[in-house]
Order: sequence, then structure tokens, then C-alpha cells
Amino acid sequence: MDDMTTDTEAGQCRKTPGRPRDARADDAILEAVIALLSSGQSAAAMSMEAVAAKAGVGKATLYRRWPNKETLLVDAMLRMKGPPPVPRGTSLREDLILLATRPIGKDNEKHTRATACLLPEIAKNPELYDVWQRVTEPRRNVTREVLRRGIETGELRADLDVELTTLMLSAPSMAQNLFHFNPAVPAEGLAEKLVDAILRGAAA
Amino acid sequence: MDDMTTDTEAGQCRKTPGRPRDARADDAILEAVIALLSSGQSAAAMSMEAVAAKAGVGKATLYRRWPNKETLLVDAMLRMKGPPPVPRGTSLREDLILLATRPIGKDNEKHTRATACLLPEIAKNPELYDVWQRVTEPRRNVTREVLRRGIETGELRADLDVELTTLMLSAPSMAQNLFHFNPAVPAEGLAEKLVDAILRGAAA
Repeated sequence: MDDMTTDTEAGQCRKTPGRPRDARADDAILEAVIALLSSGQSAAAMSMEAVAAKAGVGKATLYRRWPNKETLLVDAMLRMKGPPPVPRGTSLREDLILLATRPIGKDNEKHTRATACLLPEIAKNPELYDVWQRVTEPRRNVTREVLRRGIETGELRADLDVELTTLMLSAPSMAQNLFHFNPAVPAEGLAEKLVDAILRGAAA
Repeated sequence: MDDMTTDTEAGQCRKTPGRPRDARADDAILEAVIALLSSGQSAAAMSMEAVAAKAGVGKATLYRRWPNKETLLVDAMLRMKGPPPVPRGTSLREDLILLATRPIGKDNEKHTRATACLLPEIAKNPELYDVWQRVTEPRRNVTREVLRRGIETGELRADLDVELTTLMLSAPSMAQNLFHFNPAVPAEGLAEKLVDAILRGAAA
């Protein structure tokens, strides 16, 4: 692969693929975006100037890497979400639990706050919504593949609504993680209980 | 009931229960809060002054009715959510569909925008979170009652996780209505499909 193709993965929208890059500046810039979001700064009000200042880089450095705020937000969201998990393919239940579990890391709380701040803006801004879809669709695609494989193996009903089931697997965790939607549901063991409840109705 | 008790229902937090009220001013004030929220104004940044100005009333009029922003937000949320639906009690499936369906009215889009703007603030502000719980708990209680009745009649499994099921009934609709979480799931018929999928696993 040459320099022209290494920058073409999803969400990498830099206009100058051949340019040598300083990974530390990239890190500082993306972390600045996440820090601003998690401190309550709205994506709509966030300026490229504020990001550059927070990251301690010049505006030229920032614009060389990300030509506009939308491409910068895509990469910040990708950084927060990380790549979708890779199911082992040996157990349908295990694969679904993996997909229904939110990653737990040292930055998880910060990322949760940032995502909670982003979601309402995503809902009302079509450009941001497109960005968000590019970030979330790969994970949904993995879920769809796992469910379709379950239908093929006969573990799941042939007429299972794959899209609805994908929603049912993700929405409760989102609602609990971001908004503590039903305070009577403990976070501990949520993914397992949810998958078991869904599988009970989805089994062939 | 005397004047002292007519104002003590949930969310009615006025300090001066005996005072004669002007329903039009109440309406204007609550609609001003909803309009500010749905226009993107954050609850945290919203001032009592801005609400009074938007409603076209004096600050004294506003403070006579609501001593602080939290009590005002409770009543604005209650106005948006409306009272919880009353299940007919003749069909478990029908009752659950009623509870999983978001009310559709002329103000629904505005209320959805306002709620989407409120949720992240609720998540990070413990006082607002308490307010939100007081608004959402009555509806969850109706759902719990319907599920427990289903267990009693033997339609639902005796070991059904009522809290998890309550979450499963509400989170997907919220995720779709507020954030179009999975764009491949149509809004049309969502409540029916969701209830049928959940009942399939929850049936005795």
C-alpha cells in the first residue's frame, strides 16, 4: 500500500494524504475535541480555533489535518467508539453479549459524557447525523452478520426481524449508560440479561 | 380538599398554594420553557429572566409561581410528557403497546427536540436527574403494574425480570424517536413489533 491509500479508511478525511504526520499532534487534537465535548461544549458551538488552542497547536496545523469540523468530529467519534468488536464465532450468545457490552476503559466515563453531549446535536443536525451514521454503522453491521449467521445455523427463527433485534440489543445499553434511564436496572450483568431475554424470544 | 392540598400533586411545587392563579400566565410560562429548550437552549444555561421575557410576564409573576428553575423544569417536563396512559386491562399485548407508543400530537416534534436537549443535561446534573425521575417514574410504575398483572394471570413467566423488561419496552422507542438510532428500523409499527418480540420471550 502506498501513501495514497493508507489514509482512505472510514473517517480519515484528510485532504493531504502524502504529507508526513505527527502522531502526537493528531492525538492532542482528537483528545482536545473529546475533552471539549465531555466538559459540556456543544459540537455546534465548537470552533476550530478553540480545538487548536486546547490542543496547543496552530490553526494551520489543525486545518492541514482536518479541513473542517465534520471530518474532525468523525475521527473524534471513531477514537471514542474504537473499532467494532470482532466476534469469535463459536457461540451466538457470547457474540451477542460482546456486542451488547459497552467497552470499559479508563476513558469510558469521559467518552460517555462526550457522547451524551453529542447525541442531541446529532439528532437536530443532518450533517452531524451523517457523521454519526458513518461511525455507528460498522458496529451495527457486525451485529447484523452475527444475527444472520444465527438464522443460517438454525439457532434463530428464520423470520427474525434483524433490524429490530439490532436496535433491541443496543438501545437499552445506550439508555442506561448515557442517561441511567431506568435506575432500577443495575449496570452489572445488563448485557448478559438483555441477550438472554432477547434470545428467549428469538430462538428457533 | 382544601387549598393547601390541591397544589401538592407530583411536580406542583409552588410555595403559595392559596394564591389565585392565572392559568394563561402558567401556560405562557411553561410553553416558554419548552420553546427555549426545543430551540436548543440548554437547561443549565436557561435563566429565570429569559423564561419570563419569553413568556411576556414579569419576573415577580414567574417567581410567585415557581420559586426556582428545578420546580419549573419539573412542570415543563410533566406538561410535555402528559399523564401516563391508563391501560384498559383487557389485553396484556394492547396495554404494553399503549405504553411503548410515544404520544403523537401537534406538539410532538417540539417536545422531542426539547427532550433530546434535556437528556444530556439530566445525565450530568444530579438535581435535574432527580427532577427527571419524578417525571418518568409514574409511567414506569404503570408498566411495572401491567407486567406484574401478566405474571399473576400466568400470561408471563413467573421469573420475568420486570425492571429489565420495562427498560426493553421504553429504550428502543426513545432511541428511535429522539436519535433515529438505527435508521433501518421504520417508526411505523415499532411499538407493536417490539412488544411482540418481547412477549415471545416473556410468555409463560
